[in-house]
Amino acid sequence: MALIVQKFGGTSVADLEKIRNVANRTAKTFDAGNDVVVILSAMAGVTDSLIEKANQITDTPDKRELDVLLATGEQETAALLAMTLRSMNYPARSLLGFQAEVRTDCAFGNARIVNIDASRIKEYLGDRNIVVVAGFQGCDPNGNITTLGRGGSDTSAVAIAAALKADSCEIYTDVDGIYTTDPNICPKARKLKKISYEEMLEMASLGAKVLQIRSVEFAAKYNVPVHVRSSFNEEEGTMVVNEDAEMERLVISGITCEKNAARIVLKNVPDIPGIAAKVFTPLADEEIVVDMIIQGTRTEGKNDLTFTVPRKDFKQAMEIEKRVAEEIGADEVLGDDDIAKVSVIGVGMKNHSGVASKMFATLADEGINIRLISTSEIRISCVINEKYAELAVRALHSAFGLDKE
Amino acid sequence: MALIVQKFGGTSVADLEKIRNVANRTAKTFDAGNDVVVILSAMAGVTDSLIEKANQITDTPDKRELDVLLATGEQETAALLAMTLRSMNYPARSLLGFQAEVRTDCAFGNARIVNIDASRIKEYLGDRNIVVVAGFQGCDPNGNITTLGRGGSDTSAVAIAAALKADSCEIYTDVDGIYTTDPNICPKARKLKKISYEEMLEMASLGAKVLQIRSVEFAAKYNVPVHVRSSFNEEEGTMVVNEDAEMERLVISGITCEKNAARIVLKNVPDIPGIAAKVFTPLADEEIVVDMIIQGTRTEGKNDLTFTVPRKDFKQAMEIEKRVAEEIGADEVLGDDDIAKVSVIGVGMKNHSGVASKMFATLADEGINIRLISTSEIRISCVINEKYAELAVRALHSAFGLDKE
Repeated sequence: MALIVQKFGGTSVADLEKIRNVANRTAKTFDAGNDVVVILSAMAGVTDSLIEKANQITDTPDKRELDVLLATGEQETAALLAMTLRSMNYPARSLLGFQAEVRTDCAFGNARIVNIDASRIKEYLGDRNIVVVAGFQGCDPNGNITTLGRGGSDTSAVAIAAALKADSCEIYTDVDGIYTTDPNICPKARKLKKISYEEMLEMASLGAKVLQIRSVEFAAKYNVPVHVRSSFNEEEGTMVVNEDAEMERLVISGITCEKNAARIVLKNVPDIPGIAAKVFTPLADEEIVVDMIIQGTRTEGKNDLTFTVPRKDFKQAMEIEKRVAEEIGADEVLGDDDIAKVSVIGVGMKNHSGVASKMFATLADEGINIRLISTSEIRISCVINEKYAELAVRALHSAFGLDKE
Repeated sequence: MALIVQKFGGTSVADLEKIRNVANRTAKTFDAGNDVVVILSAMAGVTDSLIEKANQITDTPDKRELDVLLATGEQETAALLAMTLRSMNYPARSLLGFQAEVRTDCAFGNARIVNIDASRIKEYLGDRNIVVVAGFQGCDPNGNITTLGRGGSDTSAVAIAAALKADSCEIYTDVDGIYTTDPNICPKARKLKKISYEEMLEMASLGAKVLQIRSVEFAAKYNVPVHVRSSFNEEEGTMVVNEDAEMERLVISGITCEKNAARIVLKNVPDIPGIAAKVFTPLADEEIVVDMIIQGTRTEGKNDLTFTVPRKDFKQAMEIEKRVAEEIGADEVLGDDDIAKVSVIGVGMKNHSGVASKMFATLADEGINIRLISTSEIRISCVINEKYAELAVRALHSAFGLDKE
């Protein structure tokens, strides 16, 4: 039989009835003879309401203490699930982050797992217990409680699966898998049977919020097969695994669309050393994250410099860059906050040519103007006018053959 | 300067505003140059609502898991107070039971503190931190979370004060000290400046629910001076300390009244060995606690056997004893569930004669019939008809000179 790690998100444990559903699911896996470790998030909404409580005290709650506060959410669900399983006569035991020896660095609020000593989990499994671990939390070298950031329970699950060399890590969530694109935008979106870690990383960082990015990095590093599936039905979801031959036949696996971006252009920037630092350092100082940066040579030693920022930071970034433009002698600063980034993603791209030209031609056929382009080995992204975003996604979904099974 | 342990109960940390009041109080003590350790309960009502949640799952929640659940209550208030103090620019740090090394036995739900390794608290104090410790919780030798039972935060506070050899342990609560008797019954009740550990133990076990009994035992054992006072004003409360000469001058320190009892009489029980076991074992089997037991020789080798039980268990106890009476050949079983126990308590009693006779005479003067009597070295208790309870308390309060300052 197998060793299976199951992770349930906040909507899957939102109340006692849902926790009972989780218990039934877990018990079924256990009854089939498997060893089972369950990782839980806090009840949906609990983490947010704890953060709100902290913010009623101060706008900048102490990070160490905030982690102590937030860790209560997963402690509650872990205790309630173990209690439910025990009331059903299953041998269950909860473990908090420090008890499960989830050792992290000291970055309160966004800690990284350094290592996990799985001996206690193994001991409990050896006694045929269902082990219920509070996700999202760990313990730093000084014995302080830490939390792993939004979606951190995914990373808890994958890291524990890696430490246990589990046969699989099932991520139960409120969607039933990873789709070729957002079904709300494109009705022809299909659930993928498989996706590679690399593709999942690009999908995750581009706005498909199913898995925490760090959990995918962990899974890739330790080669943990991750099964993303729904906690509300029995259907198979999507396997996130190593790249294989089958995937390579598919040129494109998915299409993502990221709104909420804004574009800023500095016109005729003098092309002298140190200019880029002058443009971007003031943004970094204000913790504004710059996404794409394009610099194209123009005329007479002057360049246009274009970049994108989150839309919420657009106004502030424009003000900063107007000051910068004056200082460095750029002609003017233009900006628009109605852009979207559409990306096609696929490991098959590595071995297929013509993906970029097909993408550009498809957008051109729909009369969509491309404002910016950026690429990685397995991704091509185009910035376009936001109003064409949905149209672009649907057109690309068809053009790359994702509409059909 | 001094090392002061301050404990705040659930009503003192019931919301964020009250937590801010606690922070102000603690900060003031700290500003005066003292080292401060704060022990907190959960917000008023939180522990009860967590228990209710567990009871929605099952009538008999697993005790280990219930402790994991309940421990979140004190974790929350400890984090919130430390956060509040930090937002006021005070160096504060929270510690949970396991971090403060509060080591207990394995009796989930009612664990006893075995020892406390105070080195981490001392280290934080050495760095001039205000140390905020989650009360009510500890850790057993296997690293499991345990809780100390109702009122356990009192015991946490006294035990930590003992481990730190603190100069004083202040218990902040919603009353402003220990009274000569219940002010709701006797308007002339006065706040005591001092009371001995022994007297406090008798008062606590007889229904003055200000301090957990175990915390008083701990304080007596390690000679920790405990200051019971209000968290809502600045007045001095009551010092619970070792017996001293001043206390001995006072014959009686307090009067308590315990309702909710019932009396059962077995008439004409054959006086042969083993009878008492036959009467009381079936009650113990049903976890019915017997308080007072009186056996008086009557006639012809037969005794009347009288005892008291909690009123909630009266019906069940009567049914049991009717079966027992038949079995052992007692004549009949009488019972009444409208009795109260009135007690006078005082260490001075050890050196003064006539306390009992004064008590009996006072009750007789009021026309109150005494049904049962029991005594300890520093206490005399009389069971009377419940309807006379308040009258008895007021009469005794006057008779023993407690009305005047």
